[in-house]
Amino acid sequence: MSQKIPDDVVFDNRPVGVFDSGIGGLTVVRALREALPNEDICYLGDTARVPYGNKSVDSIIRFAKQDAAFLAGKGVKALIVACNTASSVAMEPLRGYFPELPSMGVIEAGIEAVLRTGASRITVIGTRATINSDAYRRGLHARSRSLLIESIPCPLFVPFAEEGVCEGRLAEEVFDLYLARQRSAPPDVLLLGCTHYPLFRGALDEYFGGKVRIIDSAQACAESARAFLAARGLCANPAKKGDVRYYFTDLPTDFNGGLWHFLSGAPSYLEKAVLE
Amino acid sequence: MSQKIPDDVVFDNRPVGVFDSGIGGLTVVRALREALPNEDICYLGDTARVPYGNKSVDSIIRFAKQDAAFLAGKGVKALIVACNTASSVAMEPLRGYFPELPSMGVIEAGIEAVLRTGASRITVIGTRATINSDAYRRGLHARSRSLLIESIPCPLFVPFAEEGVCEGRLAEEVFDLYLARQRSAPPDVLLLGCTHYPLFRGALDEYFGGKVRIIDSAQACAESARAFLAARGLCANPAKKGDVRYYFTDLPTDFNGGLWHFLSGAPSYLEKAVLE
Repeated sequence: MSQKIPDDVVFDNRPVGVFDSGIGGLTVVRALREALPNEDICYLGDTARVPYGNKSVDSIIRFAKQDAAFLAGKGVKALIVACNTASSVAMEPLRGYFPELPSMGVIEAGIEAVLRTGASRITVIGTRATINSDAYRRGLHARSRSLLIESIPCPLFVPFAEEGVCEGRLAEEVFDLYLARQRSAPPDVLLLGCTHYPLFRGALDEYFGGKVRIIDSAQACAESARAFLAARGLCANPAKKGDVRYYFTDLPTDFNGGLWHFLSGAPSYLEKAVLE
Repeated sequence: MSQKIPDDVVFDNRPVGVFDSGIGGLTVVRALREALPNEDICYLGDTARVPYGNKSVDSIIRFAKQDAAFLAGKGVKALIVACNTASSVAMEPLRGYFPELPSMGVIEAGIEAVLRTGASRITVIGTRATINSDAYRRGLHARSRSLLIESIPCPLFVPFAEEGVCEGRLAEEVFDLYLARQRSAPPDVLLLGCTHYPLFRGALDEYFGGKVRIIDSAQACAESARAFLAARGLCANPAKKGDVRYYFTDLPTDFNGGLWHFLSGAPSYLEKAVLE
């Protein structure tokens, strides 16, 4: 960050709001911290109602609205929906409820990242709710009709990630359960359409023998966020160091164990949030 | 039911209330229907907040209280807590909140069933929350200090059951993850301390080569319920046929798929419940 900052640039040092159904969105926070180290972040994880992936569309929209309202109350300048499930069904309702709050979702970011590769044969994996919503396929086909897209729900990946079983024989058995056919006939791109899935990135790369380009929606989200904030004049002063405040709707006893899979160190600020 | 009923016996035909965090408690309903075919049942599954196993004690007690209040509002004569997690931490609070409503929990029932076997080496398996609560071990040791008890959390069993992966190579790999040592040195009794686990009963029996007596807490709960109702003069008229009303706090799109693993037919009455 040695470039000179013109005197007339106005910075916006308010935090960026990020929410997810639980702790999966912390992979987005980690990617955001790397891409935008000067931004403050308010993270909300709805751990009292996690997961969203097996809930109805009505419930997901209601939960997302409560999540966004909580972050709006914290004075965030923009909203990043890090939850694939919420991102697949709640972006339009959220923009209706909070017209003043610029928002982006992890799915839109993943779609942009896939299109940038120029690849044509795409496999999207995600939770059952995300895949059933068909949001990735619809979004990709709306931009390019010629793409060959297949979407595969991998519901056991999330519990495996939360158990820390991200590699080894058992993880491979689960890859086989969902992806054996793709292993024999690999696509050009494998899009990890769930915030938990980056934890399998190394093992999946090995499973496919390095023959598939893996796109991680958390990383894609961080890249899109940079352009999103810049386009709206919402960037924080690059001279400052960003910090993260973590809010969770529930703090279970074994919570920290789960957190450590996602964060590299202890959180600096953590508070229980009440939404209901 | 050909025995003659004395004229002075008074029956109580109000329904029995059963709640669980989701659909797992349907194994208890199935067992209750077999043991007490004349009882009406009101079942509440808190599918909007499922699972409870990864939530804090405070949240679990709050949820259990809302669940019980809903069933009390339906005029139930007794309450069966079919959720192991709620049963492990919320029985005393529930009895405090609803002193007029007789209640029993699936854990108390499982403990009784283990004691009836007279076995001495017991392995208890359950979700992380149930095992961390130590409720089975404490309850068993309170009754018999000489029992050798080991408790093993098996958090991947619930997602496997809900995916319908209840047997075969992958299921066995997961058994190995948690129970390889017990397979080499089998206990006398394996207590299935989670309402989802009866779905693995056949495969577990095979895994242990028939050498372990498997106690299913759902079945144990039904057996205890019979004695519980009789002792309080709460039995329904044996001449009548019982029915079940199902209430769920959320009705996801792929809900029926999950239900079919647990119920043998379509539910006769199903309604969305609002607790919050």
